[in-house]
Amino acid sequence: MSVSMVANTKTLAELSAMVGGEFTGDPEITIHGLADLASANKGEIAFMVKEADIHVLKKSRGSAFIVPHTLSYDEKPLIKVANPYLAAARIQSFFQMKPFQAKGVSHKADIGKDCTIPEDISIGPFVSIGNRVRLGKRVTLHPGVVIGDDTVIGDDCLLYPNVTVYHSCIIGSGVIIHSGTVIGSDGFGFATDENGEHVKWVHIGSVQIDDNVEIGANVTIDRGTFGKTHIMRGTKMDNLVQVGHNVKIGENALVVAHVAIGGSASLGNNVVLGGQVAIKGHIHLGDGVKVAGKSGVHANVPEKTIVSGIPAIPHRDWLRASAIYAKLPKLHGELRDMRKKIEKMYAKLFPGEGQK
Amino acid sequence: MSVSMVANTKTLAELSAMVGGEFTGDPEITIHGLADLASANKGEIAFMVKEADIHVLKKSRGSAFIVPHTLSYDEKPLIKVANPYLAAARIQSFFQMKPFQAKGVSHKADIGKDCTIPEDISIGPFVSIGNRVRLGKRVTLHPGVVIGDDTVIGDDCLLYPNVTVYHSCIIGSGVIIHSGTVIGSDGFGFATDENGEHVKWVHIGSVQIDDNVEIGANVTIDRGTFGKTHIMRGTKMDNLVQVGHNVKIGENALVVAHVAIGGSASLGNNVVLGGQVAIKGHIHLGDGVKVAGKSGVHANVPEKTIVSGIPAIPHRDWLRASAIYAKLPKLHGELRDMRKKIEKMYAKLFPGEGQK
Amino acid sequence: MSVSMVANTKTLAELSAMVGGEFTGDPEITIHGLADLASANKGEIAFMVKEADIHVLKKSRGSAFIVPHTLSYDEKPLIKVANPYLAAARIQSFFQMKPFQAKGVSHKADIGKDCTIPEDISIGPFVSIGNRVRLGKRVTLHPGVVIGDDTVIGDDCLLYPNVTVYHSCIIGSGVIIHSGTVIGSDGFGFATDENGEHVKWVHIGSVQIDDNVEIGANVTIDRGTFGKTHIMRGTKMDNLVQVGHNVKIGENALVVAHVAIGGSASLGNNVVLGGQVAIKGHIHLGDGVKVAGKSGVHANVPEKTIVSGIPAIPHRDWLRASAIYAKLPKLHGELRDMRKKIEKMYAKLFPGEGQK
Repeated sequence: MSVSMVANTKTLAELSAMVGGEFTGDPEITIHGLADLASANKGEIAFMVKEADIHVLKKSRGSAFIVPHTLSYDEKPLIKVANPYLAAARIQSFFQMKPFQAKGVSHKADIGKDCTIPEDISIGPFVSIGNRVRLGKRVTLHPGVVIGDDTVIGDDCLLYPNVTVYHSCIIGSGVIIHSGTVIGSDGFGFATDENGEHVKWVHIGSVQIDDNVEIGANVTIDRGTFGKTHIMRGTKMDNLVQVGHNVKIGENALVVAHVAIGGSASLGNNVVLGGQVAIKGHIHLGDGVKVAGKSGVHANVPEKTIVSGIPAIPHRDWLRASAIYAKLPKLHGELRDMRKKIEKMYAKLFPGEGQK
Repeated sequence: MSVSMVANTKTLAELSAMVGGEFTGDPEITIHGLADLASANKGEIAFMVKEADIHVLKKSRGSAFIVPHTLSYDEKPLIKVANPYLAAARIQSFFQMKPFQAKGVSHKADIGKDCTIPEDISIGPFVSIGNRVRLGKRVTLHPGVVIGDDTVIGDDCLLYPNVTVYHSCIIGSGVIIHSGTVIGSDGFGFATDENGEHVKWVHIGSVQIDDNVEIGANVTIDRGTFGKTHIMRGTKMDNLVQVGHNVKIGENALVVAHVAIGGSASLGNNVVLGGQVAIKGHIHLGDGVKVAGKSGVHANVPEKTIVSGIPAIPHRDWLRASAIYAKLPKLHGELRDMRKKIEKMYAKLFPGEGQK
Repeated sequence: MSVSMVANTKTLAELSAMVGGEFTGDPEITIHGLADLASANKGEIAFMVKEADIHVLKKSRGSAFIVPHTLSYDEKPLIKVANPYLAAARIQSFFQMKPFQAKGVSHKADIGKDCTIPEDISIGPFVSIGNRVRLGKRVTLHPGVVIGDDTVIGDDCLLYPNVTVYHSCIIGSGVIIHSGTVIGSDGFGFATDENGEHVKWVHIGSVQIDDNVEIGANVTIDRGTFGKTHIMRGTKMDNLVQVGHNVKIGENALVVAHVAIGGSASLGNNVVLGGQVAIKGHIHLGDGVKVAGKSGVHANVPEKTIVSGIPAIPHRDWLRASAIYAKLPKLHGELRDMRKKIEKMYAKLFPGEGQK
């Protein structure tokens, strides 16, 4: 039926209203998808983040464009918004959003005892679910997912293949977890005895992940020694991130790939950690802190501060210090020359004092 | 039966004897669990590592406390020991230790030919075991574990879901491997030809992991090109660690998350590698070496040395150098001022010499 | 039959011809395997990369040796070549190469609808294949591999246990992917709204991996936001590498463990990235660029350049700067002494000017 083919079609006016923009051009133009400036075709809307790309927009075959509201150009159909990147993400979600389709429970899955599993669900083959697990509505568990005993997963969660969630974890609603990620492994906690042998701390805590968190692929999030490791709502984590036991990550953090967060560290809300950052255990980063990629943070950081380096210092200072670092050999040479002159002058001015 | 409910109960005197401590207070106080100072309740023993936390201890509702033997306080029931953290880990192990329960082999597992599998075992669904695999007693293989041909796993090993062990690896007794970890993948060994193409080295070596090693989640340990990659007894590895081909890690190492150890590197006993450390291939770290987090070690390190930085230098030197790094812009400015004065003075003192 | 036992046997003359070498000694010596110098036995050929190891060669029990053509020694049977390491890798491949054996499709695998699966294939238990997947000839999918809908995999590919390939990816011929690796997860792309909440970019792109690529264990390669993430032919990646959305890696790259490559970065051909390197998103590295381990590259790098450090600078400069870094405390002290002398001299020479 052609109706279903065009189900996700909107007019320019409708899209503009959807993102709170102002449009110019024919309000009835029909749009069926979003693309980037260079590859957009007829029937698609493209987006321009930087005005400097206006020459690409002019040549684009897209039928309409999401542009910054500051743009002084209106020869093509436009939606003007404060943040074109955000508006485009929202429009892309609208066009690409696929409604949940319940496929039921594969007969090749393995389900434990006393589980709560609603009908409105998709559980793939080779999924293993322990005992007393509770799943929310519209949960998708792709093939190879393993869920341990007593774990709770909220509505509308999406777990990609080969994710492992250990026992007794709590996952909120709308959480996305990519393949290979491990939630609830034991923290790295050992007590070393007089012979240098390491006695394992049995970890009786858990992991709590709140609503709308997204976790990348091959991430590891350890359970608490006591109490919980806690990822708060709206936080997004990239691939291969390590989160130690009892870490607390506040709301709406962005944690880029290969970050390592040491045990019992706590992060406020809206924190941004660049790629390969390390956060020492037991320290606190305030709300809005940003850490540049590859930095190592050894001490508390007050809110809204940007830090860089190993150990991390204020970003501005790091920018200047790192620029001078490259000049160290030259400075070293100059220093040697200066010293020679000083000694020569000093010997002439204070001949009785010798070297000192 | 109430008997089973209190099976893991001990008196204060019994717990004190278990950890070689000295107790004060009623020896018959009954303890059923361990908790941290802040959350302990009646019937629980808590532990205090630092005497500075005495005010928390005083307010704690715990029934007894593990404290440093140097503490001069005895108004509550105490167990005094040299290392409260170690004693607490041992008592926690006692309370939380669950005896192995043999669940047998899931009918949803896949077992190859000519394997040795004792009755006293737990093999979950979707576990795949190759041919000629030998498993010890009381081994637990959680769902999704894959064991390659000819691999040997000792008694009392615990492999969490979705662990992969390639063919012909040897794993000792009491080894714990967390989810997603890969043992025995090919080393990163290629020979580059005259056209820049990389010819793969077929890796015919193996991996040997000795008794009581614990390996975190999503770790990768490559097999030897020839010979073996060897992790010796008692070593503990955190998550997302990379161990190259033919690496040797001695006994009782602690390897924190995101460490990368290059091919053929060798570590002595009791080495500690902080998070995100990189060890160059083919170098040797002596017994007791400690490497601070984020460091890159390019050369051999003698025993009992602490190193930091990229490249790693003695930790003390690094602490002082890194403190000055942040001051480089200020020093740069001072240097410029000094140079001006030197030139001015020099011109006055040695007018005939010009600039040089 | 003894014939099959010696199927992979060659004479010295045959092996020499295979690698384009010149041999000395009895051309009919029979060789059945390759080993390293120290462990080679009768009937095996060993290889010596550095002439400094000649004393090890002299004591080796190997029957023949692959050596640099510059070697002036011929008391044992030798194959002289320009690159012994390369010749040895080729000879090792010959001896260890096992012809593909089709095991068919395990009845414990799960295959979707409308797939193209040739007879000449090995699909293990608990492999899950989506709908409309096309597999080439002689593909091996080990247990626990998951392939998403519409993905295409070329001839002679080898996917180790628990690999996940998401939907709509394209993998060429002769590709090897080690366990735990994830291909096609969503890129880390979010647009942040006025409340600090992150709106997910739906990723409609894909991943393309060309012929003869090898990918290590627990690697993550994100799909494109639009368009594709592209790994070109002959590139080899170590374990735990992160490749962001829309990254392009040219031909024959070597990417060592724990590297992170930011979204939309592009690498030319024959690039080498050392362990734990980070490449910022949207930058370009020219053909033949080499980045030393642990470096962070923030800006474009012209072809054939070697860079190091955070931020990366020319390698030579970094070597000199990092050597001085360790001396900063000493330099700092000298600077203080120099300043004192300057002030003392200045006060004497220009007494009227005061401090300035």
